[in-house]
Amino acid sequence: MTQLEQYTNNRARMLIACPDRPGIVAAVSQFLYEHGANIIQSDQYTMDPEGGMFFIRFEFELNHMDKELPILQEDFTRVADRFDMKWHTFRASRKKRLAIFVSKEDHCLLELLWQWKAGDLDADIAMVISNHNDMRKVVESFGIPYHHVPVTPETKAEAEKKHLEIIGDKADLIVLARYMQIIPPKFIEHFPNRIINIHHSFLPAFIGGSPYAQAYKRGVKIIGATAHYVTEELDGGPIIEQDVQRVSHRDNVENLKRIGRTIERIVLARAVKWHIEDRVLVHQNKTVVFN
Amino acid sequence: MTQLEQYTNNRARMLIACPDRPGIVAAVSQFLYEHGANIIQSDQYTMDPEGGMFFIRFEFELNHMDKELPILQEDFTRVADRFDMKWHTFRASRKKRLAIFVSKEDHCLLELLWQWKAGDLDADIAMVISNHNDMRKVVESFGIPYHHVPVTPETKAEAEKKHLEIIGDKADLIVLARYMQIIPPKFIEHFPNRIINIHHSFLPAFIGGSPYAQAYKRGVKIIGATAHYVTEELDGGPIIEQDVQRVSHRDNVENLKRIGRTIERIVLARAVKWHIEDRVLVHQNKTVVFN
Amino acid sequence: MTQLEQYTNNRARMLIACPDRPGIVAAVSQFLYEHGANIIQSDQYTMDPEGGMFFIRFEFELNHMDKELPILQEDFTRVADRFDMKWHTFRASRKKRLAIFVSKEDHCLLELLWQWKAGDLDADIAMVISNHNDMRKVVESFGIPYHHVPVTPETKAEAEKKHLEIIGDKADLIVLARYMQIIPPKFIEHFPNRIINIHHSFLPAFIGGSPYAQAYKRGVKIIGATAHYVTEELDGGPIIEQDVQRVSHRDNVENLKRIGRTIERIVLARAVKWHIEDRVLVHQNKTVVFN
Amino acid sequence: MTQLEQYTNNRARMLIACPDRPGIVAAVSQFLYEHGANIIQSDQYTMDPEGGMFFIRFEFELNHMDKELPILQEDFTRVADRFDMKWHTFRASRKKRLAIFVSKEDHCLLELLWQWKAGDLDADIAMVISNHNDMRKVVESFGIPYHHVPVTPETKAEAEKKHLEIIGDKADLIVLARYMQIIPPKFIEHFPNRIINIHHSFLPAFIGGSPYAQAYKRGVKIIGATAHYVTEELDGGPIIEQDVQRVSHRDNVENLKRIGRTIERIVLARAVKWHIEDRVLVHQNKTVVFN
Repeated sequence: MTQLEQYTNNRARMLIACPDRPGIVAAVSQFLYEHGANIIQSDQYTMDPEGGMFFIRFEFELNHMDKELPILQEDFTRVADRFDMKWHTFRASRKKRLAIFVSKEDHCLLELLWQWKAGDLDADIAMVISNHNDMRKVVESFGIPYHHVPVTPETKAEAEKKHLEIIGDKADLIVLARYMQIIPPKFIEHFPNRIINIHHSFLPAFIGGSPYAQAYKRGVKIIGATAHYVTEELDGGPIIEQDVQRVSHRDNVENLKRIGRTIERIVLARAVKWHIEDRVLVHQNKTVVFN
Repeated sequence: MTQLEQYTNNRARMLIACPDRPGIVAAVSQFLYEHGANIIQSDQYTMDPEGGMFFIRFEFELNHMDKELPILQEDFTRVADRFDMKWHTFRASRKKRLAIFVSKEDHCLLELLWQWKAGDLDADIAMVISNHNDMRKVVESFGIPYHHVPVTPETKAEAEKKHLEIIGDKADLIVLARYMQIIPPKFIEHFPNRIINIHHSFLPAFIGGSPYAQAYKRGVKIIGATAHYVTEELDGGPIIEQDVQRVSHRDNVENLKRIGRTIERIVLARAVKWHIEDRVLVHQNKTVVFN
Repeated sequence: MTQLEQYTNNRARMLIACPDRPGIVAAVSQFLYEHGANIIQSDQYTMDPEGGMFFIRFEFELNHMDKELPILQEDFTRVADRFDMKWHTFRASRKKRLAIFVSKEDHCLLELLWQWKAGDLDADIAMVISNHNDMRKVVESFGIPYHHVPVTPETKAEAEKKHLEIIGDKADLIVLARYMQIIPPKFIEHFPNRIINIHHSFLPAFIGGSPYAQAYKRGVKIIGATAHYVTEELDGGPIIEQDVQRVSHRDNVENLKRIGRTIERIVLARAVKWHIEDRVLVHQNKTVVFN
Repeated sequence: MTQLEQYTNNRARMLIACPDRPGIVAAVSQFLYEHGANIIQSDQYTMDPEGGMFFIRFEFELNHMDKELPILQEDFTRVADRFDMKWHTFRASRKKRLAIFVSKEDHCLLELLWQWKAGDLDADIAMVISNHNDMRKVVESFGIPYHHVPVTPETKAEAEKKHLEIIGDKADLIVLARYMQIIPPKFIEHFPNRIINIHHSFLPAFIGGSPYAQAYKRGVKIIGATAHYVTEELDGGPIIEQDVQRVSHRDNVENLKRIGRTIERIVLARAVKWHIEDRVLVHQNKTVVFN
C-alpha cells in the first residue's frame, strides 16, 4: 500500500444538515472523539442563529477505517435522531464515479480528462456518453469507455432509457460537459443534486440558448460561466461555482466563445472537484460550499 | 498659467463614427497633420471591415488652440461630408459639468466628491440634486450647491420640471449616484447618452428593485455592479462598465450590500471618468470605450 | 438597549492556537456547550495533522455575558492547560480602539473614516496622528482628535516618545494609513502584531520606497497593495491581505499611483476589518485569516 | 481556397517604433491608403509627447497580397527613413513556427497543443524538444516531431549545440513551457525577443527556483505567473503577461502548485497568442502589447 493510499484509506468526511440549536458542534465533535476519529478539518455554517438551518462538514481520520467506520455510523444514529439531522459519511478511498456527457465541444471534457490524468481530480471516470461519435478516439486513448447514443426529436425517450441502462449503477455523478440536450425530468429524478451542468453564461443572465450571442447583443463588459446542479427548471438549479473574464467592444461572438471556453473549463472542473470531495451541500435552491 | 493648465489648454479630442470604408484614418490623420495638430493618442475600432461602422478617437495638441480649433472645425466639415461622419471635438480645458442625483445612500456620491477633490476626476461638479435633504451638509462642505427636490407619487411631474429648471444649461452630464427614482422619458430626451446610472447588479441579471436580495435568493457566487447610460428601457441602456466581486453562502443580504457598495463606487467613478475624457461612443445599444 | 446593542452585548469570540492533537474541537465545543455558550461560527485550521499547529476561532453567544464570561474564562484555563493553548476571548461589545497614523496622502485615512461612519467598521477611532497638519480639518470634522507630531531626522527619538505619550492606553490597534516614516523597534515592541501597515505594492515585490516607480520601471502588467503587520523587518511582517489590478504599458507612474490608491484603500480597510473582528491569528511570520 | 484562407491571405500587419514627432500617423496611413491597403485596426502608443518613443501597429488588407506587399515594403523605406523608423511587416498567412521546450511538467505544453488543435493558436508547431523522454507519446499523437536532448552538467554545451542544430531555420519562436534548464547566452543571441518563458510566480517576486515554496514561506494571499521574453538576466526579461489567483493559509505548497498550473497555462497561452499575432513590441526592458 502506498503512502497516498494509506492516507486516503484512513480518511472520511461527514456532512450534516439540521435545524440549528445549541450543542450540535459539541455533540458531534465529542462523539467523533470518543470513537477515535481525529478531526482534520471542520467547517460550519448557520443560516440564522435562531431557528435557521445548520450545516457542518467534518473531515476526520480513523486508524482502522474498515472496522471502525460501520460502528461509528451505527452509533451516530442516536446523535442524528436527537438533533433531527440529515447526514452522510463518505470514505475518501471510495472514489466518486463519473459519467461525463458531451456533445461536439471538447474543451470541458478534455479539461476533466487532463486534471484526472494529472491526479488533480480524485475520481474514477466510468464512461463518456455522447450524442455524437466525434470524441471516441481521444476518450478511448485515456482507457475510458465511450458510448455513442444519438438523440433526435423522435428518439428522445429511447435515448433516455438507453442512458439509464448504460449508466446502471456505475456512476455517482453525472457531469454535463457542454452536453447540448435538455435532460428529461425522469433522468434528473435518478440523480438528485448529482448532475452538474456547465452553463456558458454568468447566470441568471442569459438563460437558454446562445448565451454568448446574447452577451454580445447586450454589450456586457464581463462574461462568465456557471456550474450548477440540474433541476427541472432550465438553468435554474443550485449554483456551485461561477467565474468571469473581462471583455471589450472589440470582442465579437467568436472571441467571446473562445474566451468563454477557458472560463467554462475552469469553473466546471472546480465544481466537480468540490463535489467529489464532498464539499457541497444543497439546501432548497442554493449551495453551501465548504472549500 | 500652470504647466497643467497649459497642457490642458492645448489638448483636444475628436470622436468620429461613420460607415467603414478605405482611407478614413489616412484622411483624418493627414487633415490633422496639415492643421498643425500633433496626435497624442488614437484608437479605432471597426465593427466589420466590410460595410460595418467605424469609430475613431484622436487626442491631439494644437499650439494655439483658441485660434486654430475653430478653423480646424470648420475645415473638417469637408472631410466629414466625404465620409458621412458623425463627429465631435472637445477641448480638454472645457471641463464637463456634472449634476449628480442622489437619494439616501451616500457612498457613490462621496466617491465622486473625493476623486474630484483629489484631482482624479477632471470635471466641474455643478450641483447635487436629491429627493432627500440628508446630504446637504457634506455636499455644501465641498462648496457645491445642493438642491432638495422631494419626489412623491403625486409630485413626480412637478419634480421633473423643477429638475430641468435647476439644471438649466449648467450641466453636461447627469450622474445618478444611487438615485432611487425612475427617470421620466422627457428628462431622458434632454440628455441623450448623457445620463449615467449605477445599477447595483451585474446586468442583465437582476433588473429592477432590490438586486442584492435577488442575488441572495438565487445563490450567486459573484456579485457585480453596472454603469450604463439611461434610456427609456429600465436598466436596459448601453453598458459603459461593469465589475464584480466574489461572495459565498456566508454572505447575507446585508453583506452583499456592503461588499457591493465598494464595487458600485469604483464602477461608477470609472464610467464617469471615461465619459468626461470623451472615451465613450454609443452605437445603437452598445458602447465603444477607448480606455 | 437597541437590538444591535443586545446582539453585540451577547456576542464573544475565542481565538486558540495550540499543538495539534486529537480531541481539541470536542473538548472546547463541549466546554462551551456546558457553559451555556451557543456557537454561531467556528473555523479551524491545522497546519499538518501530525504534530503541526492547530488554530481555531469560535464566535458564540452567552445569555448573560457580564456574569458568565468571567466564569467561562476562569474555567477555561483547565482546558487550555491540558492542550497547551494560547488563547484569547474578545467581547464584541468591547470595540477595538484605533490610532491612525497618516502623512500627506489622505485616501486610506478617508476610506477608514467613511467606512467607520457608514457603520461598516465596528471600531472606535481614538485619534489620528500625523507628521503634517494637512488633515486636521477633515479629521476633526468627524469629531476625532488630531495630533500633529512633526518628525525630522533630528527629532525622531523625541517624536517616538511623543507618540507613545499621546497614545497611552487609548488604542488597541495602530493603523499606518500611508504613514511615510519608519516605525522604530521600541514602538513596535509596544504593539506586537497590532500595527497594520499598507504597503503600496504586491509584496514581496518592490520593497521599500517608490514602489509604483519600481513597478513602472520593471514593466509589470498587474499592480497591487499589501496590508501586513509591522515587524522590525521593513515590509517583511505577516501579510494579512493583498489585492491587485491590471495595468498596461499606457499607464505611467502617475496612473499607477491613481489606480493603486483604490487598491490600497480597499486592502487596508479589509485588513483592519478582519483584525477588529478578531479573525486574524499570527503564527511565526504568517497569518491565518478566518474570514 | 476557403474563406478563412482568403481572409488570412489578404491580411498583413505592420509594427513600427520610432522617435515621436508630428505627422507619423498621417504619413503612414496616407502611405497605406495610396498603396491600396485597407486599415482594419491600428493601435499606437507614445511614451511621452515630447521626444519619447512612438509605437504603432497597423493591421491591413491588400487585395493582391503576393504582388502588392513587396512593392509596399520597398516603397515604405522612404517613409521609414524620414522618421527614423524600425519596422516590420508580417503576412497573417505566414504562420509563426514554434519550437516548444518542455521538461517533466506537461500542463503548459498540453494547453498549447490543445489551443492549437482547437484553432485558437494560429501557428505551426514545428517541434517539441525536451531533456526528458516522457512526453514523446502525447506529442507524437498530435503529429508533431519530438526531440529528446538529455542535459547534464557535463553535456550542457553539447546540448545547446544540438538544440541549434535541430531547430536550424525551422522555428520563429521558442516557447519554454516549463523547461527547467538555464538558457545559455549564445542560444538567447540567436533568438532576440523570440524566446518566451513562463515563470511560475508574479515577477519580480520569487525569482529563481521553487517560487511556490517561496510564496508559501512568505505567506502571500495571491499567487501568480509571468510570461516574459528571455534575456541574460534570470527571470529579468521584458514581461508580456501576468495573471494571479487568490489563495489562503489553507493552501500548502502542493495546492499552490496545482492552482498555479492553471494560471501558468493561461498566461503562457495568452503571451504566445499575442506574439504570433504580432501584437508585442519590445522597448528596452518593457513590452508594448497592442491587444
